[in-house]
Amino acid sequence: MATITKVSPLGPEKFPDLPVIDGVRFATAQAGVKFKGRTDVMLAVADAGSTIAGVFTRSATRSAPVLDCQEKIGLDGMGPLAIVVNSGNSNAFTGKHGRASVAAITAAAAAATGVSVDRVFTSSTGVIGEPLPHDKIVAVLDQLNADLDSGGIAAAARAIMTTDTYPKGATVTVDTEHGPIKIAGMAKGSGMIAPDMATMLVYIFTDAKIAQADLQAVVSATNDTSFNCITVDSDTSTSDTLLMVATGASGVTVDRNHAGFRDAVNALFLDLAHQVVRDGEGASKFVEVQVTGAQSDKDAKIHAMAIANSPLIKTAIAGQDPNWGRVVMAIGKSGAAADRDLLSIWFGDILVAEKGWRAEGYTEDAGAAYMKNDSLIIRADIGLGTGTATVWTCDLTHGYIEINADYRS
Amino acid sequence: MATITKVSPLGPEKFPDLPVIDGVRFATAQAGVKFKGRTDVMLAVADAGSTIAGVFTRSATRSAPVLDCQEKIGLDGMGPLAIVVNSGNSNAFTGKHGRASVAAITAAAAAATGVSVDRVFTSSTGVIGEPLPHDKIVAVLDQLNADLDSGGIAAAARAIMTTDTYPKGATVTVDTEHGPIKIAGMAKGSGMIAPDMATMLVYIFTDAKIAQADLQAVVSATNDTSFNCITVDSDTSTSDTLLMVATGASGVTVDRNHAGFRDAVNALFLDLAHQVVRDGEGASKFVEVQVTGAQSDKDAKIHAMAIANSPLIKTAIAGQDPNWGRVVMAIGKSGAAADRDLLSIWFGDILVAEKGWRAEGYTEDAGAAYMKNDSLIIRADIGLGTGTATVWTCDLTHGYIEINADYRS
Repeated sequence: MATITKVSPLGPEKFPDLPVIDGVRFATAQAGVKFKGRTDVMLAVADAGSTIAGVFTRSATRSAPVLDCQEKIGLDGMGPLAIVVNSGNSNAFTGKHGRASVAAITAAAAAATGVSVDRVFTSSTGVIGEPLPHDKIVAVLDQLNADLDSGGIAAAARAIMTTDTYPKGATVTVDTEHGPIKIAGMAKGSGMIAPDMATMLVYIFTDAKIAQADLQAVVSATNDTSFNCITVDSDTSTSDTLLMVATGASGVTVDRNHAGFRDAVNALFLDLAHQVVRDGEGASKFVEVQVTGAQSDKDAKIHAMAIANSPLIKTAIAGQDPNWGRVVMAIGKSGAAADRDLLSIWFGDILVAEKGWRAEGYTEDAGAAYMKNDSLIIRADIGLGTGTATVWTCDLTHGYIEINADYRS
Repeated sequence: MATITKVSPLGPEKFPDLPVIDGVRFATAQAGVKFKGRTDVMLAVADAGSTIAGVFTRSATRSAPVLDCQEKIGLDGMGPLAIVVNSGNSNAFTGKHGRASVAAITAAAAAATGVSVDRVFTSSTGVIGEPLPHDKIVAVLDQLNADLDSGGIAAAARAIMTTDTYPKGATVTVDTEHGPIKIAGMAKGSGMIAPDMATMLVYIFTDAKIAQADLQAVVSATNDTSFNCITVDSDTSTSDTLLMVATGASGVTVDRNHAGFRDAVNALFLDLAHQVVRDGEGASKFVEVQVTGAQSDKDAKIHAMAIANSPLIKTAIAGQDPNWGRVVMAIGKSGAAADRDLLSIWFGDILVAEKGWRAEGYTEDAGAAYMKNDSLIIRADIGLGTGTATVWTCDLTHGYIEINADYRS
């Protein structure tokens, strides 16, 4: 069994200082679901007046916790709410046992915290197809409730890690005419735990006062241009979950059209999404793929994702190979409209190809020098219209194979 | 630069004995397009009375030779025809230079062989985005014409290789009420040549007498269930080409509905398609993915390709990890209809999962023992309908990364 301990070279220098978000408290515990000697459960409880919005994996085989969250997320409640997250077992493809585990945890969390059971949300990440030992989680809920602390968010970010090589946190402040709004959040993702696939979990908290429907609108729109624009290996987890809670404790009210709030949420989502990619399994390069000039934004995203998911491009990047022919190939195969002779390709600011051929001034040496950077921009102009898209990915290295092939539970 | 010389462990023991197909002759030469000390051009000339059909990459950025072949393939000519194939340079994304190279080669081949220029078909495989030194090919065409020999098919199969680790040939005979029909063919594929992507080229010859439209119908239908059902890494080449020539020299006439001929073509296409997968870059396992019970055949193929292209499944297979959770994941993310609780999954004859959970009698030891085989069958029954599909792939190993990341021109 391979042991993955090295922190990604693309990670941040340190975990950010996350502020207290008034109206929400956190606690963590060592339940021993799978991991030993580390925290593996986190509880967050938000006060009455909070709203919650979420987005979830579109997988047709999504996990029991995801199905439970989806049933509850649209309810326009304003009472207190709780989020329970465990690492080590995903409770996915666990049949009726999975539903029973969710019921047991939500009931126990409701009893421990005094929150209504239809306001208790759970996530699980880790092994698939194994019954979740939910008794271990139930057993620590009273202590978790007793330990709730407004300063506990950083510890919570660690408890939800699986084989992430670093905890992921981000914060942003919005100055409004009525006073500041604070937003802070955490994510896990792209680390994997045998025999499961990478799962992305994201929890965001703000002291803004915002109606549930408005919060959902902002979350859904921002998710489409952030977390839905990152890809490590084109595979989709059965457990991906993003929840955002607004406590209202700042007393500053916003709606879905508040530009400052939207921009801040967008910046924070992007920050966390990029941290997830930078911790991609085996990643040695962070890659931004920009597509312009497509027939539509939708076409642009299809091209961008075809580039970002191409194993041949991702291995070329790992090998620091300025292999623009593979970018031509990916655009050609994507299925979206393209014309070979109208296409232009750049690596960073270097024009590599245009007019159906290698660009006149391009040299292989210039391309090869650029590819040595840790962060790369691949840009393609399709030359057909005004559609644009930007997505982010990482390279495909021996490290990915080691983690996913040589790693056995 | 990595040197890839080891023959794939999944390859055939030896190249098959290919029969003479009356009405077609072959020659090869060392033109020095890129490779030194080996043949890199093949010429095939078929006699008057021959028909030709073809299928080509659907890439929007397909190469100049492909575009030229597509213009000519539907012409219902019956005069002699010629096929010129070079390895070492794909003449793809070479702009107007590419068209000029095709024009130069087809004109010279027509002059050398006496074949009408609209019956000269060319393919090129190798480096992308570099001008094809077509003068080197033109220079050997007279000698190629002089060397034409009905026994030259095996040598031709070697001349079209790039970094294929073995030449690929197959043959089959059809006994009809009017006498036997012979079919023989060659393929290259899945080997790659920096800085290009894997390209598949296939050339099939038969002495059957069949109208062009009928031959095209058989080729198109059979291609859909053979070459279009294999995948190494989900990437599509700008140069993929399959041409089938019927010389009519046997005097045995068939049409598109001749079951024996269709079955024989199908068997031969499948044989070559499997040889291409078995020579997949870095492949250590040959994998058949069978999907049954989908809502439609189309849905079944979407599920099967999602399984076959999943990097997480392909790395698990490389690691001999019976990771059925990743099969659940791939079916869930494919976009085709699925219901977690109706799904059943087998590894070979071993029922692994059913009713939304791990199968009752399944043991990890049984799964792990099965995964040690060189050839694997992964089967999923979706439980929703009668749609079926079978596709073939290989695993994703360190060898793939080595070939595609560490390999520099």
